[in-house]
Amino acid sequence: MASVQDITVGAAVNVLSAVVFLVAFAILRLQPINDRVYFPKWYLKGIRGSPTRSGAFVSKFINLDCRTYIKFLNWMPAALRMPELELIDHAGLDSAVYIRIYLLGLKIFVPIAALAFGVLVPVNWTGKTLETIKDITFSNIDKLSISNVPPGSKRFWAHLVMAYVFTFWTCYILYKEYRIIANMRLRFLASENRRPDQFTVLVRNVPPDPDESVSEHVEHFFCVNHPDHYLTHQIVYNANKLAKLVEKKKSLQNWLIYYQNKYERKPDKKPTTKTGFWGLWGQKVDSIDYYTAEIEKLSKEEVAERERVISDPNAIVPAAFVSFKTRWGAAVCAQTQQSSNPTIWLTEWAPEPHAVYWNNLAIPYVALTIRRLLMAVGLFFLTFFFMIPIAFVQTLANIEGIEKVFPFLKPLIEMKVVKSFIQGFLPGIALKIFLIVLPTILMTMSKIEGFTSLSTLERRSAGKYHLFLLVIAFLGNIIAGTALQQLHTFLNQSPTEIPKTIGVSIPMKATFFITYIMVDGWAGIAAEIVRLVPLVMFHIKNTFLVKTDRDREQAMDPGSLNFYTSEPRIQLYFLLGLVYSVVTPILLPFIIVFFAFAFMVFRHQIINVYDQKYESGAAFWPDVHRRIIIGLIISQLLLLGLMSTKGAEQSTLVLIALPVLTVWFHRLCKGRFESVFVKYPLQDAMVKDTLERATEPHLNLKAYLQDAYIHPVFKGGELERPAAIDEEENNPLVATRRSSQRGSKYGSGENSDNGV
Amino acid sequence: MASVQDITVGAAVNVLSAVVFLVAFAILRLQPINDRVYFPKWYLKGIRGSPTRSGAFVSKFINLDCRTYIKFLNWMPAALRMPELELIDHAGLDSAVYIRIYLLGLKIFVPIAALAFGVLVPVNWTGKTLETIKDITFSNIDKLSISNVPPGSKRFWAHLVMAYVFTFWTCYILYKEYRIIANMRLRFLASENRRPDQFTVLVRNVPPDPDESVSEHVEHFFCVNHPDHYLTHQIVYNANKLAKLVEKKKSLQNWLIYYQNKYERKPDKKPTTKTGFWGLWGQKVDSIDYYTAEIEKLSKEEVAERERVISDPNAIVPAAFVSFKTRWGAAVCAQTQQSSNPTIWLTEWAPEPHAVYWNNLAIPYVALTIRRLLMAVGLFFLTFFFMIPIAFVQTLANIEGIEKVFPFLKPLIEMKVVKSFIQGFLPGIALKIFLIVLPTILMTMSKIEGFTSLSTLERRSAGKYHLFLLVIAFLGNIIAGTALQQLHTFLNQSPTEIPKTIGVSIPMKATFFITYIMVDGWAGIAAEIVRLVPLVMFHIKNTFLVKTDRDREQAMDPGSLNFYTSEPRIQLYFLLGLVYSVVTPILLPFIIVFFAFAFMVFRHQIINVYDQKYESGAAFWPDVHRRIIIGLIISQLLLLGLMSTKGAEQSTLVLIALPVLTVWFHRLCKGRFESVFVKYPLQDAMVKDTLERATEPHLNLKAYLQDAYIHPVFKGGELERPAAIDEEENNPLVATRRSSQRGSKYGSGENSDNGV
Repeated sequence: MASVQDITVGAAVNVLSAVVFLVAFAILRLQPINDRVYFPKWYLKGIRGSPTRSGAFVSKFINLDCRTYIKFLNWMPAALRMPELELIDHAGLDSAVYIRIYLLGLKIFVPIAALAFGVLVPVNWTGKTLETIKDITFSNIDKLSISNVPPGSKRFWAHLVMAYVFTFWTCYILYKEYRIIANMRLRFLASENRRPDQFTVLVRNVPPDPDESVSEHVEHFFCVNHPDHYLTHQIVYNANKLAKLVEKKKSLQNWLIYYQNKYERKPDKKPTTKTGFWGLWGQKVDSIDYYTAEIEKLSKEEVAERERVISDPNAIVPAAFVSFKTRWGAAVCAQTQQSSNPTIWLTEWAPEPHAVYWNNLAIPYVALTIRRLLMAVGLFFLTFFFMIPIAFVQTLANIEGIEKVFPFLKPLIEMKVVKSFIQGFLPGIALKIFLIVLPTILMTMSKIEGFTSLSTLERRSAGKYHLFLLVIAFLGNIIAGTALQQLHTFLNQSPTEIPKTIGVSIPMKATFFITYIMVDGWAGIAAEIVRLVPLVMFHIKNTFLVKTDRDREQAMDPGSLNFYTSEPRIQLYFLLGLVYSVVTPILLPFIIVFFAFAFMVFRHQIINVYDQKYESGAAFWPDVHRRIIIGLIISQLLLLGLMSTKGAEQSTLVLIALPVLTVWFHRLCKGRFESVFVKYPLQDAMVKDTLERATEPHLNLKAYLQDAYIHPVFKGGELERPAAIDEEENNPLVATRRSSQRGSKYGSGENSDNGV
Repeated sequence: MASVQDITVGAAVNVLSAVVFLVAFAILRLQPINDRVYFPKWYLKGIRGSPTRSGAFVSKFINLDCRTYIKFLNWMPAALRMPELELIDHAGLDSAVYIRIYLLGLKIFVPIAALAFGVLVPVNWTGKTLETIKDITFSNIDKLSISNVPPGSKRFWAHLVMAYVFTFWTCYILYKEYRIIANMRLRFLASENRRPDQFTVLVRNVPPDPDESVSEHVEHFFCVNHPDHYLTHQIVYNANKLAKLVEKKKSLQNWLIYYQNKYERKPDKKPTTKTGFWGLWGQKVDSIDYYTAEIEKLSKEEVAERERVISDPNAIVPAAFVSFKTRWGAAVCAQTQQSSNPTIWLTEWAPEPHAVYWNNLAIPYVALTIRRLLMAVGLFFLTFFFMIPIAFVQTLANIEGIEKVFPFLKPLIEMKVVKSFIQGFLPGIALKIFLIVLPTILMTMSKIEGFTSLSTLERRSAGKYHLFLLVIAFLGNIIAGTALQQLHTFLNQSPTEIPKTIGVSIPMKATFFITYIMVDGWAGIAAEIVRLVPLVMFHIKNTFLVKTDRDREQAMDPGSLNFYTSEPRIQLYFLLGLVYSVVTPILLPFIIVFFAFAFMVFRHQIINVYDQKYESGAAFWPDVHRRIIIGLIISQLLLLGLMSTKGAEQSTLVLIALPVLTVWFHRLCKGRFESVFVKYPLQDAMVKDTLERATEPHLNLKAYLQDAYIHPVFKGGELERPAAIDEEENNPLVATRRSSQRGSKYGSGENSDNGV
């Protein structure tokens, strides 16, 4: 059991590292040379120009204005200043809603913390159980927790009432937030510009026809079954090989540019390269000649493959993007069943053109169900085997464990500062390293499962990751930790007794989770804002590859929110907060600090850095809501388990209603709001159609949609951004409003910050 | 533990009662006076006339032709003779598919029984464990069960392999059957005549509008949002009070007729009645005058109420039946979301006009969710409190229990025949009585939950009843039975150990369930065919109320399948068969006899008796399928529990894959077939529309649909049958085919049977 002193040292270490990160950020972001690392969003929007263009030579790279360094935290108010509507315009609804998750955390936990400190902490503190027991060590933190209340005490009524109050408050806030987000989404969809995906439906599993090609078959089917609405369709080519060739060519071109730059700088020495594996051995040749020839060769190959794909009927996959004359027609087709065999002619809303995951469009139905089964089994085994290393690391992170394994370290560890450091830092770090490996595996699994759009892939991966964090980071830590103390008891009792055991271990694990919050939630978030990896990568690229401004644009890596890794991590904080709100309220302030700090950091990142790859219109919110509900139910069940071991068995009857009511609340919300995120109501489609017909009666929609869904390799070999920006330019109304806002209000604020 | 002798006595008793019922049926059905009780379906179809019309006076009532009595079982081949396609024509798809459930039972269990008797019975019989243990009593039946195999024996491999074989066989048959039923449904829907519900969508939760009436609001909404497809709509009146008046008037009219008949028969004595409560006290008046006056009064009231309902805007509920020009338009509207608020403008397929449950059309969304919550909690408590009396009765049904409670009965009970009788008969009967009370309560609960069509109500009630039977009839019997022997152990072990305990008790309960099958499945089914209650009721009505042939038509009570009570009961047999297939295969032949016998009886009833109130096109099949899967998974889990106590712990690893694969199989089937039963594909709608447009270009659909969905009280106060029959007459093709088939093939067969 860590003492208050351990916690204080941990807090100090983590606050210190957070401050170090923030100072580093403050200094780095003011250097003009890093401008593209810390403000890429504005460059992509075309609003910010390179600061290196004008001024003295040195000040192109380093900021010499000392005054700007003094106010090193003033990015925080700047991040908070942009109003939400403008934020949606600027960064998209996904991002704007994403940071509302942090706000939701504050809304839920600040009142809960106030109430818990007002009621539960005094009740616990005066419980005086731990003082009377001499043979177990306890710290002051435990005195504030439910452990300090004697078994069978009447004081537990306070905890029961508070459990109800907290649940009702959480549900109330959740309901309100769901309604707000649903309205935001509706407004967002209603105000959206014309986009190809509004008119388009993705049709999969087109059945083979002996007499017709896929294209003819699709056209005939929809001409017959949607006669008044069908407009056009685009077939999908299996261009995976072509995409690989394009990718390889791009890499070779990068090397060519690298050697050309090298040659320009040192014209006296022609650069050479070896033709063998990774340039490590083989014949030495002139680099520029070699890469030019290789690119030449690859270009020919690419042209041949391109022709093959277009002419070969086998390169056409049995899927198509079908476009309709109206949004109404598309909404109808996306929401209805086409054929009496529900495994063919599957229709769903088409993703945005650049959010299509092209590799998964051609998987037949049975293959899909088998893949899902295999991935479900795989997920189970992955979860299961990850438990072993975690438990092992947890053993080591224990002071006594380390002393046993490495007895020579004993004098060092016994030093008070080192001991506190290990106890306050190591368990969190060990867990963190494990968690970094996972998301990529999970995303691959989601891809194998056959989802067709990036947003679905991210949402599915998030679901898997959430399960993982639940099992590994939450349950794994609680059980593995206690397992070391109670392994024998554990093996000899029925496995179904575990829930009770978890409930009992909950208060004992409070200090561990406090350190975890500080490492992951405080220092980790502060590290996020420094963007170390993109910073290094940008400067490497900038030095070796960049010739033109366009190259520099491509060298920027704005990154994105990575919903599938970050959202489940937030959920862990919700879970911890809900579980400990009744048991050990002292944990709540740490969580509140995390939510507040993360809110500011991510708001800043969204405004200045991240460039989302797609816009799903906050389609992830039902998942967020559901997972908080899951956390709430887990917290209620664990409290039930804990209470039944505390000599308050009669409380079971009182507490059992809570999960029932929570499940009912979830169903209510689901029925009330979820369809806003899943379906597209015909009324809204009709309104937009009517409006468009009135304002643009002569719109040539067919021409607009003709090439919207073409595999990116056919667009000149580059993954171009879609027509969004062009469209904004075509639409004077929106563009004017936006640029004027930015120019007047925000752009100036930014400029003064940078001293440019 | 009942011995083989007990079972034999039980079997003899039940076979005997079944034979008694069958003989009674054979005699009763041949009496012309009972013709309308045993062949009402043919009367309703208009194919069979009253046999009382012609012939000698006595032979109008009693069949004097002795030859017909000899072949008293020849209704069985007659029942099997009608081919399935004709059966669908004759009785509807619901009925035809319903009896396929029994056929499915045969398909699953006959091969399983063959295999079990070939492999498992020899393995168990030669296990020789029970013979070596002296201190527990066992019977020969137990020797055939898994109990006879010594713990840790290698023989369990046979059971494991068989568990896999049985699961795969069951799934294979289920898949095939699902495909067959899905195709039958598709063919049925495609061949259906024009019906109002094909064009109509039920719209609920029409939002209030300050400026428009409900009717205008509906019209405007659909004119705007389905401009090319909207045809007309019908508003719904809250005519509950009116319906009550009509009901009351009908009852008074019955009494009037009764007294008029009485007076006609005995013209010398004017019948009198008392005006007070239930005619028990109060002023004595002339009955005919009194009822005539009362009817007069009520008629006036009814007219006033009728006018009030039609003119009062508050009598209009916020729901409407909206009809479309095409089936395509209706299919689109039924499957899509209309408004961005998913709790208003809710659309679903309209039920058939006579299958609408009118009282539930006006429940707002939140009220609905609260009702569902309350009913879920109610269902839980109902289930919970029903356990107590069941357990009590089970105690009594135990010989020793009875002797303890009623010691004076000891000499009687100790008689061998009585003892066997009690053990073979009583437990089944006790359970049966409890189960008779339930369905009505459950149906009421479903009505409170707010479903809008009779078919949904039945399906939901069936779900509840299935849960009940699982908990009470299956688990309740197993646990309560063992609880008497192991109560102390039970209370002192964790409640989650129960699954294991159930698994252990399974083999011990085999004899109990065998008697249950004989009572409920053999004698019960035979009792069904005699139709005692309708027989008595018909003769009472026929004597006192019938004047014209039309009255006699109304006095007939053909009844219907009562899906919501009978289907869950079949599921109990599936569950028992699957659970015992590996454990105690001797149970299987009893189940097979039940399925075969019930198949014949219900096929006969469907052909000759039942008159379904609605036609859902076998929409219940996904439920049937799912419940068999649930039974399969329960059987696998119980086998797992049983095996782990049999010293075959390593089998857990082998068996755990079974439920996983079964769940996956269920998902596969769900994805592959379920939408056939839930949605209406646009392609099929388009085919029917196109066909209709070609064959009947001048059809006035608006006139056809105008009055289709009018509350039955507005149709002249009687619950008329819908236009189905009229339509058949309008459609010469179908009518000719049907009547010719019936006239030649089946009608003649029936006639010879009856000797008419």
